[in-house]
Amino acid sequence: MRPAVVLLSGGLDSTVCLAVALREGFTPWTLSFDYGQRHRRELEAAAAVAAALGVPPERRRVADLRGLFSGSALTGQGEVPLDRGAAEIGVGVPVTYVPARNLVFLALTAALAEPLGARDAFIGVNALDYSGYPDCRPEFIAAFTQAAALGTQDGLQVHTPLARLSKAEIVALGAHLRAPLQLTLSCYLGTVPACGRCDACQLRRRGFAEAGLPDPLAYA
Amino acid sequence: MRPAVVLLSGGLDSTVCLAVALREGFTPWTLSFDYGQRHRRELEAAAAVAAALGVPPERRRVADLRGLFSGSALTGQGEVPLDRGAAEIGVGVPVTYVPARNLVFLALTAALAEPLGARDAFIGVNALDYSGYPDCRPEFIAAFTQAAALGTQDGLQVHTPLARLSKAEIVALGAHLRAPLQLTLSCYLGTVPACGRCDACQLRRRGFAEAGLPDPLAYA
Repeated sequence: MRPAVVLLSGGLDSTVCLAVALREGFTPWTLSFDYGQRHRRELEAAAAVAAALGVPPERRRVADLRGLFSGSALTGQGEVPLDRGAAEIGVGVPVTYVPARNLVFLALTAALAEPLGARDAFIGVNALDYSGYPDCRPEFIAAFTQAAALGTQDGLQVHTPLARLSKAEIVALGAHLRAPLQLTLSCYLGTVPACGRCDACQLRRRGFAEAGLPDPLAYA
Repeated sequence: MRPAVVLLSGGLDSTVCLAVALREGFTPWTLSFDYGQRHRRELEAAAAVAAALGVPPERRRVADLRGLFSGSALTGQGEVPLDRGAAEIGVGVPVTYVPARNLVFLALTAALAEPLGARDAFIGVNALDYSGYPDCRPEFIAAFTQAAALGTQDGLQVHTPLARLSKAEIVALGAHLRAPLQLTLSCYLGTVPACGRCDACQLRRRGFAEAGLPDPLAYA
């Protein structure tokens, strides 16, 4: 039994990531983050995804980042942009950027992993996000891994199985691994049905379309 | 006005670090961590130190890490060793080690710093801790800095002004900068008067003795 911590947001990418970790023979502990109201439904989706993939409640952790700093930070408020064209998505740092998000997430992953004896972690960063989010780049993951190797007793191998996949390839991989894609949420607005217009909805819909598969989600 | 985030535990080292940041002309925001009962008094000490050095309440932040993970981790419980000889202190990883502590602390520092427009942080790691705590080594700080440079918009310069100082030199520097050393707490047990027997108390007392200065703390 090789334990691994899988960052699970309840979105498409992290769900496929969890399916990959299982396929690779790891015993996953899921780690989700609560950092504000917009993400409530994502947490429910994460729990549903974990249950569907056989991760028992005692191996699901939620780190509560709400109000982590008395009176500030960590939640990217501001308006979610809608109806941006394909040429705009992935250019510049989006307003949905959370300061140092993956740095914080991975550091907390390392803190959770060590007492569990887990030396592996999975995170669903992927190529489409590189240009917009600095903390999705492979260089960042490599630098973090080095910091974890030097700053913890056991180090942490960070697996990024989606790093070089397009959204369509992620969808196809998820379908192949029978990941419960129907339970995932991608919409930045977190509405049900999904808005269909934010960057995340647009990327997802295009991914399913290019993979030639129906998107099981309902859109407004 | 150059803002900087200073990690402030309420102990001797971080207090001297804050005094150094002020001397270097930074406008400090202090960041303290609440990760369990043993550290309650340290938080009070941190607030007293910040006040004494003129940091107003609105520039003091406390990150609440208690129960960060539902049902586990992050607090090093276990017994604090007492009366260890000089040859034992700093050898091996102490039981007071918190998994990935400085990795988590610095990641949260980066998250706090970015919205404040702070590109500098101060952390009081120092040479005596290197052999025991992996996350106090300069190599770790360098690797973290690299990860922050790649994983955030602005990066974070991590200042470690105590890195190459002995405890006696830290005491002397603190006295020179008129840091309120009488308000600091070092004892791992967190008792008042301090136990005088844990590693932290022993290192501190030896530091004052070697600096030729009286330790203003009361010991049991």
